Amino acid sequence: MTALSPTPRSTIRRGSRRARSERAELHAVLDAGVICHLGVVIDGAPVVLPTGYGRLGDTLYLHGSTGAASLRAAAQGAPVCVTVTLVDGIVHARAVFHFSMNYRCAVVHGVPRLVTGEDERLAALRAITENIAPGAWDHARGPNRRELAATAVVALDLTEAAVKVRCGPPGDDDEDVTQDGVTGRWAGVLPLRTVHGVPEPCPLLPGTTAVPAHVSGPDDDHRR
Amino acid sequence: MTALSPTPRSTIRRGSRRARSERAELHAVLDAGVICHLGVVIDGAPVVLPTGYGRLGDTLYLHGSTGAASLRAAAQGAPVCVTVTLVDGIVHARAVFHFSMNYRCAVVHGVPRLVTGEDERLAALRAITENIAPGAWDHARGPNRRELAATAVVALDLTEAAVKVRCGPPGDDDEDVTQDGVTGRWAGVLPLRTVHGVPEPCPLLPGTTAVPAHVSGPDDDHRR
Repeated sequence: MTALSPTPRSTIRRGSRRARSERAELHAVLDAGVICHLGVVIDGAPVVLPTGYGRLGDTLYLHGSTGAASLRAAAQGAPVCVTVTLVDGIVHARAVFHFSMNYRCAVVHGVPRLVTGEDERLAALRAITENIAPGAWDHARGPNRRELAATAVVALDLTEAAVKVRCGPPGDDDEDVTQDGVTGRWAGVLPLRTVHGVPEPCPLLPGTTAVPAHVSGPDDDHRR
Repeated sequence: MTALSPTPRSTIRRGSRRARSERAELHAVLDAGVICHLGVVIDGAPVVLPTGYGRLGDTLYLHGSTGAASLRAAAQGAPVCVTVTLVDGIVHARAVFHFSMNYRCAVVHGVPRLVTGEDERLAALRAITENIAPGAWDHARGPNRRELAATAVVALDLTEAAVKVRCGPPGDDDEDVTQDGVTGRWAGVLPLRTVHGVPEPCPLLPGTTAVPAHVSGPDDDHRR
């Protein structure tokens, strides 16, 4: 596995002991998320919007309506920042100053390119769909000409990226830890995870249509 | 309840039928989230980082180390964008083009002000802590002088904000819906929700320390 090669912009300065340096860890965070937050600069001000994404190798794909301002900005050679964050727990410390969250976060900087080749566009759309709904691409109807014409796809190389992970118990000061017997204060982590509920069929669907295995899934966790 | 007064920048153009106009809906989305994504412009490029936040009335508070570049940028009169997104479900459509997510999303634009008054700083820190860990502020040790000196707090008025909510079944084309009996394709929503697991005590804690009710909570859902 190759290491990430940080630039000044993608070098983690705050809490640098939480920085991860392996490309595999970047991939793992991206593959575990369902939405990213896409940041662009419009009229000198930042705009941050949630959107789906997909990864193929060291390329991140985003898609959207050809009319969406944020995607149009991203497709026109402007720099973007794409951030994927998974919250794993609430860190209860002895002191409010040390309250925190356990999380995994990937931040990707770069200038996207508009994807124009039909093969790459289809592969990207498949990756984006499968990232939120594994197994769905082959189950559903594929895109027709009109739908493809209405969809813009951009690609962002995973060259300039940073990964930061916080895990484990709170980082309280020794003075507070030694007071545990006196204060009786609790400290630790309240784990959070995303689970899926019971699939809700479209009301227009015939009642006889079974929920396929790729929707109901074998386990409770949406992602591991 | 007052309505949101959208500016050109906070007017939702794509999927405008999903825009919500009530201030109470903005508050509800912000109060249901635990992290926001803060966007700032640094050297002409967007930077998007996750962080905690708290709301008091129509003010959103963020805090961070006085040394954090993103917070420093936010405290120096530069425009920011703060986005809170809650993913409620994966929308499986009959056509891949109509795959989507159900979500609630609040986007706030503005120029934050650095909070300097000690009373407002403490109220803000309390709101930020309580937003991730309700009930924790009165349980834990409050901030001391040194900790307060290391913490920057900024305030962002909830003046220029937009709320977008997608809910309900997929929006497939009629041509696909009428084919249901033929294709046997499933369509509907796979609900997602965040739940908390069993609290994990800090290994340094005496084994006799009970998990307080504000941590273990009466219900499974982290937020409603």
